[in-house]
Amino acid sequence: MIRFHDIVKDDLAILGLPLDHNSSYMTGPALAPSRMREALHCGSANLTSESGFDLGMEPRWKDIGDLSFTNVENSLDEIEQVASDVLSRGAKLLSIGGDHSVSGPLIRAHTKTYPGLNILHFDAHSDLYDEMDGNRNSHACPFARAMETGQVKRLVQVGIRTLNKHQKEQAERFGVEIIAMKDWSTEVLFDFDGPLYLSIDLDVLDPAFAPGVSHHEPGGMSVRDLLNSLYKLNADLIGADIVELNPHRDLVGMTAMVAAKLTKEVSAKLLGK
Amino acid sequence: MIRFHDIVKDDLAILGLPLDHNSSYMTGPALAPSRMREALHCGSANLTSESGFDLGMEPRWKDIGDLSFTNVENSLDEIEQVASDVLSRGAKLLSIGGDHSVSGPLIRAHTKTYPGLNILHFDAHSDLYDEMDGNRNSHACPFARAMETGQVKRLVQVGIRTLNKHQKEQAERFGVEIIAMKDWSTEVLFDFDGPLYLSIDLDVLDPAFAPGVSHHEPGGMSVRDLLNSLYKLNADLIGADIVELNPHRDLVGMTAMVAAKLTKEVSAKLLGK
Amino acid sequence: MIRFHDIVKDDLAILGLPLDHNSSYMTGPALAPSRMREALHCGSANLTSESGFDLGMEPRWKDIGDLSFTNVENSLDEIEQVASDVLSRGAKLLSIGGDHSVSGPLIRAHTKTYPGLNILHFDAHSDLYDEMDGNRNSHACPFARAMETGQVKRLVQVGIRTLNKHQKEQAERFGVEIIAMKDWSTEVLFDFDGPLYLSIDLDVLDPAFAPGVSHHEPGGMSVRDLLNSLYKLNADLIGADIVELNPHRDLVGMTAMVAAKLTKEVSAKLLGK
Amino acid sequence: MIRFHDIVKDDLAILGLPLDHNSSYMTGPALAPSRMREALHCGSANLTSESGFDLGMEPRWKDIGDLSFTNVENSLDEIEQVASDVLSRGAKLLSIGGDHSVSGPLIRAHTKTYPGLNILHFDAHSDLYDEMDGNRNSHACPFARAMETGQVKRLVQVGIRTLNKHQKEQAERFGVEIIAMKDWSTEVLFDFDGPLYLSIDLDVLDPAFAPGVSHHEPGGMSVRDLLNSLYKLNADLIGADIVELNPHRDLVGMTAMVAAKLTKEVSAKLLGK
Amino acid sequence: MIRFHDIVKDDLAILGLPLDHNSSYMTGPALAPSRMREALHCGSANLTSESGFDLGMEPRWKDIGDLSFTNVENSLDEIEQVASDVLSRGAKLLSIGGDHSVSGPLIRAHTKTYPGLNILHFDAHSDLYDEMDGNRNSHACPFARAMETGQVKRLVQVGIRTLNKHQKEQAERFGVEIIAMKDWSTEVLFDFDGPLYLSIDLDVLDPAFAPGVSHHEPGGMSVRDLLNSLYKLNADLIGADIVELNPHRDLVGMTAMVAAKLTKEVSAKLLGK
Amino acid sequence: MIRFHDIVKDDLAILGLPLDHNSSYMTGPALAPSRMREALHCGSANLTSESGFDLGMEPRWKDIGDLSFTNVENSLDEIEQVASDVLSRGAKLLSIGGDHSVSGPLIRAHTKTYPGLNILHFDAHSDLYDEMDGNRNSHACPFARAMETGQVKRLVQVGIRTLNKHQKEQAERFGVEIIAMKDWSTEVLFDFDGPLYLSIDLDVLDPAFAPGVSHHEPGGMSVRDLLNSLYKLNADLIGADIVELNPHRDLVGMTAMVAAKLTKEVSAKLLGK
Repeated sequence: MIRFHDIVKDDLAILGLPLDHNSSYMTGPALAPSRMREALHCGSANLTSESGFDLGMEPRWKDIGDLSFTNVENSLDEIEQVASDVLSRGAKLLSIGGDHSVSGPLIRAHTKTYPGLNILHFDAHSDLYDEMDGNRNSHACPFARAMETGQVKRLVQVGIRTLNKHQKEQAERFGVEIIAMKDWSTEVLFDFDGPLYLSIDLDVLDPAFAPGVSHHEPGGMSVRDLLNSLYKLNADLIGADIVELNPHRDLVGMTAMVAAKLTKEVSAKLLGK
Repeated sequence: MIRFHDIVKDDLAILGLPLDHNSSYMTGPALAPSRMREALHCGSANLTSESGFDLGMEPRWKDIGDLSFTNVENSLDEIEQVASDVLSRGAKLLSIGGDHSVSGPLIRAHTKTYPGLNILHFDAHSDLYDEMDGNRNSHACPFARAMETGQVKRLVQVGIRTLNKHQKEQAERFGVEIIAMKDWSTEVLFDFDGPLYLSIDLDVLDPAFAPGVSHHEPGGMSVRDLLNSLYKLNADLIGADIVELNPHRDLVGMTAMVAAKLTKEVSAKLLGK
Repeated sequence: MIRFHDIVKDDLAILGLPLDHNSSYMTGPALAPSRMREALHCGSANLTSESGFDLGMEPRWKDIGDLSFTNVENSLDEIEQVASDVLSRGAKLLSIGGDHSVSGPLIRAHTKTYPGLNILHFDAHSDLYDEMDGNRNSHACPFARAMETGQVKRLVQVGIRTLNKHQKEQAERFGVEIIAMKDWSTEVLFDFDGPLYLSIDLDVLDPAFAPGVSHHEPGGMSVRDLLNSLYKLNADLIGADIVELNPHRDLVGMTAMVAAKLTKEVSAKLLGK
Repeated sequence: MIRFHDIVKDDLAILGLPLDHNSSYMTGPALAPSRMREALHCGSANLTSESGFDLGMEPRWKDIGDLSFTNVENSLDEIEQVASDVLSRGAKLLSIGGDHSVSGPLIRAHTKTYPGLNILHFDAHSDLYDEMDGNRNSHACPFARAMETGQVKRLVQVGIRTLNKHQKEQAERFGVEIIAMKDWSTEVLFDFDGPLYLSIDLDVLDPAFAPGVSHHEPGGMSVRDLLNSLYKLNADLIGADIVELNPHRDLVGMTAMVAAKLTKEVSAKLLGK
Repeated sequence: MIRFHDIVKDDLAILGLPLDHNSSYMTGPALAPSRMREALHCGSANLTSESGFDLGMEPRWKDIGDLSFTNVENSLDEIEQVASDVLSRGAKLLSIGGDHSVSGPLIRAHTKTYPGLNILHFDAHSDLYDEMDGNRNSHACPFARAMETGQVKRLVQVGIRTLNKHQKEQAERFGVEIIAMKDWSTEVLFDFDGPLYLSIDLDVLDPAFAPGVSHHEPGGMSVRDLLNSLYKLNADLIGADIVELNPHRDLVGMTAMVAAKLTKEVSAKLLGK
Repeated sequence: MIRFHDIVKDDLAILGLPLDHNSSYMTGPALAPSRMREALHCGSANLTSESGFDLGMEPRWKDIGDLSFTNVENSLDEIEQVASDVLSRGAKLLSIGGDHSVSGPLIRAHTKTYPGLNILHFDAHSDLYDEMDGNRNSHACPFARAMETGQVKRLVQVGIRTLNKHQKEQAERFGVEIIAMKDWSTEVLFDFDGPLYLSIDLDVLDPAFAPGVSHHEPGGMSVRDLLNSLYKLNADLIGADIVELNPHRDLVGMTAMVAAKLTKEVSAKLLGK
């Protein structure tokens, strides 16, 4: 169903990833792509970013639909394959929805195209577990998998507020840089040498702003602080994902609107606007 | 039903405007006045402002009821007439509820009494559309209508985060001063020369604080930041409206309480306390 | 049902107080202890504090169950007795749940063990009423009761935003130090000479962060600001309570997670971690 | 605030009773009258009963506003006084909102005007307690109070599903006829000799139909079955109340619509249509 | 976007109609098609009808996507055109979502293909208004429009419980047969001579079963009674629509599941299973 | 934590099973036992069954707490062991909470004590899958597992409305008697020869009555119809489970009250009252 034929050089492809079988606590993120599209095109908002860039008028901004997995076991491999296909056309990829396990294959695909890849990761959790409930592809593990490739130059995690002993050891082992939520403010600036991949887990936000996530972890950032931090980001942004929207807990659709807003703003960034 | 006979010089009249037929996306604000009164008199709170002023003991603070429209077509004219009547008695007016289309006639009435009127407008949206879906009275248009009168000295908009090309052109055409949400903090101070009218659209707040609005636009301000900004406001405040509460999305009545709190604090300001 | 035999010197006892008959507006806090335990052990989180201290591995951290009141009339006396028993074993007490009336007897018990007791009280309300609806044990009165003992050295109240004339007079009469919400930020530091008891009413938080409370009072602090303020607290913390969670208004369990997070972080503080 | 001057012979007065301090479990019903009026006049419905009678065109159907209690202690006496005043004008009364304690004084007033009064009472609970938590005016007691007057000819209770030993004894003592929910169907017909007062506690309905009540007691009747039972009622209906709507639990306003529908249908019955 | 090329003789085309600008009270039904598809393919259910027919294995059951309106003014004409195109291929059409205004053009298209068309209409409302708020295409008017064509043999309305004077006159004028909700049970059988079109407005159900509709009208039927009535229907069913799902009020997605269940069961009926 | 020492001959032990890792679609039922106890002891209800039996006064009715699983892999074996222990003391067991996978080991334990065991199973689903997503212990499989023991005399399933081809074949293979929801009414009577085990999946109820379940399957029975069917049940009831309450979807606790009501009524049945 993916409209590959639409993608050409310099495009930004928006790809839905309806997958949540690697979630440890609660399913739901598989429903995220359709809810994010619904919110993106909601009659109560428009498609202009806060920088004044109208995505609705931008021919390079292309929604290529959802990935239809042929097989649950191979789903992460299929994601890597699709991402590689998009990148091989000279386009960028912004994937939306799914649980955080999707970031493993997405990052693998990007490291192959972009040597010296840096990662900026917003999340309440480090997601550095070696395994969770016996599943090495769990949404609690993608950054362990990414770091094991040896192809990631720097991984900077922001907003973390649940670091336990095991994950702290993993962070030390992989040289992960962690900016805990308690030490963060919008004054913290990031400086990356080389290409940057951005991964946003919506639970980096306080549950007040994003109740529609599987893991409510109070004490997170506000939407405004996250947005302003992104606006200040001065880097060669080459790809991104926005994950962990869980519509089951999003009673009035508020979190879907947050995810859509981030999709617009990150899209503008990826398109250099 | 409006109790005009109650209003005398120096009073502050609270007037409910149960109107939402000019809403472009979702009806509901017509239900706002009764919910705001319910919250104002809720047993879980009291009527003392944060400055220590007890509205419950203030004889000048008078709720004159809801405007009962005789005719949908003329509703905005009826609002202008009622506002003019209140002002002609030497009283001030704080209108509560309704969608933002009510601000057009309210401002018209105030410009006639107060030459050189300034407007401070808190909102996620500029509401400067020339027309929306063919309706020039849409809640997306009141500030275009207000500026077209030529009687507004300055219009300052705060918290805007959805400015598209058309509205940007309108803002330039009318000389509107916009402080985008991304550039705002409570450090921003306002200085007005002459009388000031205040219009608060509840969606200037982040949906986390005010889920009960028609247009969820993430990235807004907190209630505390809005309140503190109002406390710092040093101006000759002569009238105000608090609009766009939508009870349909206000599951546990939280937004009605926000609207009631603002009603109390703005009332204290209008009464010079 | 309380497991006293488990408690030894230097322990931190967690005690549930399922009581809400002194609530003036809405019952519900009696359900809080079980919801807070559910959230504490929720599969979506872990037991490590933000300082890196794993409560799950700490033998001194002991949940001793809920107090089963034998008699509604004597419930506050029973609380004082249980608290005294815990303190007499050389242990500390963190009580969870119930309405704020529980703080009266808890503070009485602590003043007997800790001469020169200071109190740090986070709340939207001063709770200094002499009586409410004829009930001197109302959840609106505990700090009047505590100050009347004459055994409290200092009472510092933070986050207050509903101070009316009567409570202001009470505060002056008792020498209560009030840091109103409008004047507070995380820059405000506290310095206490002698032992400190901490009482957290969840409604000190903005209802956006803690909708599950009986009294929605907009304009409160964020969870992050409360947490960071607690981390900065440099004092001899010897006891605490976390009160006023009302599950009836906590539609998706978000506030229970906030209460559980605070339980973890305050526990770490009480254990010196 | 009650508009007595409007009431003349043969009118049906609609009176709001915003009272809930006699509720044993949860406050809220004091908010009911305004929500019921909001639902009655909601743009999504009309004022025609299922029998085809348009209340909006009926001059005898008069909303006289809410009773404003001057004093909590005397509130039930004030209700009796107001009801007596309405009845003394030759009008009928339909009271809306409040907890069930209001039925005590309402029935007392009606027995004085209508000797040989019968009562038909729809409820999940018998409300025959001698006292509850020391309060003989509790919403759990009104029918004990009514029967103690000795002026009630027959009390028929329908839909009961929580009869405990004490209430069973009370029912036997007072000769109350109980049709338990498990034995009821719309085939059960009622035949009363003399005037009939109708009291509907919304919790007679299953919580699926009426979630907005304080006491969720599953296994109740459907709205349709209640309506059809009322349509079949062939009696001299001379007064009624509709009680126990609790807006705190009525997330999307569904129960307020049920209460409004019943208000319309019972009004038509009382007006002989 | 409609996949016409997929449709061949004897197919059943499922078509989404994302339209709600003719709604008189509340928008939302435009979001229905995507929510109905989400529910249809929800992991918590399967695609087998209660008669044992597996739609997932049926090649004739084809989802052809949503109609993308080129122009709001002509939207009803576009619906008629698309429906006619489907019918001209010898296929049947089941349209999902939208407000009830879509039934006007759908019925027009069917009358042209099927002379002597009968209509069976489940609804709380007759939708026979001549106009509503000046709009003759309002969702309150489609059956007036359909009857004015003179091409409808019989219109039978079931579940009606809001018939006012105007609509009663319209019903008499057009010879509409109305089975009011109060007179209906699953024992009522229908017998049609000639082709039958089925139109289901979800508000025929009690709001307990279908809270996700714009017009809450208590006293409706249960899902089971509606399903059993459909199973008993012995007629030449040649087309159908399922309308008025409003996701804004469907907090936990329950009504979308009802709409999806009806889609499955009506599909089986249309395919003769 | 289980209080075995409390159990003696003729007791009815209430056991909580906090387990949901065998759920195919959504976790949550592990939270059910504590919510069901909360509802059982809720101040808004009492402990008297509709037959007038007061469980609160019955010494044989004993809550023995929750099973604490030592090991996820062996959890079903641990359930069987505990159930066998209870039965070996001559007591009966009513287990509450958990997903339906718990019924497999519960039935195994009962077949060993009660030769010729019959099962009456209320559910929307047959739960006869041979395996689901590779898990033979899935909550979709317990009755396949039970029937494979060869020790079940009859399995009667009531309320089924999702029977697909595979499950139909399984039903035929095992000789399961299915009363589909569309064919059921309270007139259907059951007659069992020998001991009867009762398993109630809350999703047999329509989602209107029980929204707090993982699988919303519209068209189910009402709480009243289920209760009345149980009251009519004339059999030697020797054990039961009430499963699949999912608090994540139970916004206002309504389904927990349903589960508690069923717990009371089934307890009375098991105790012969």
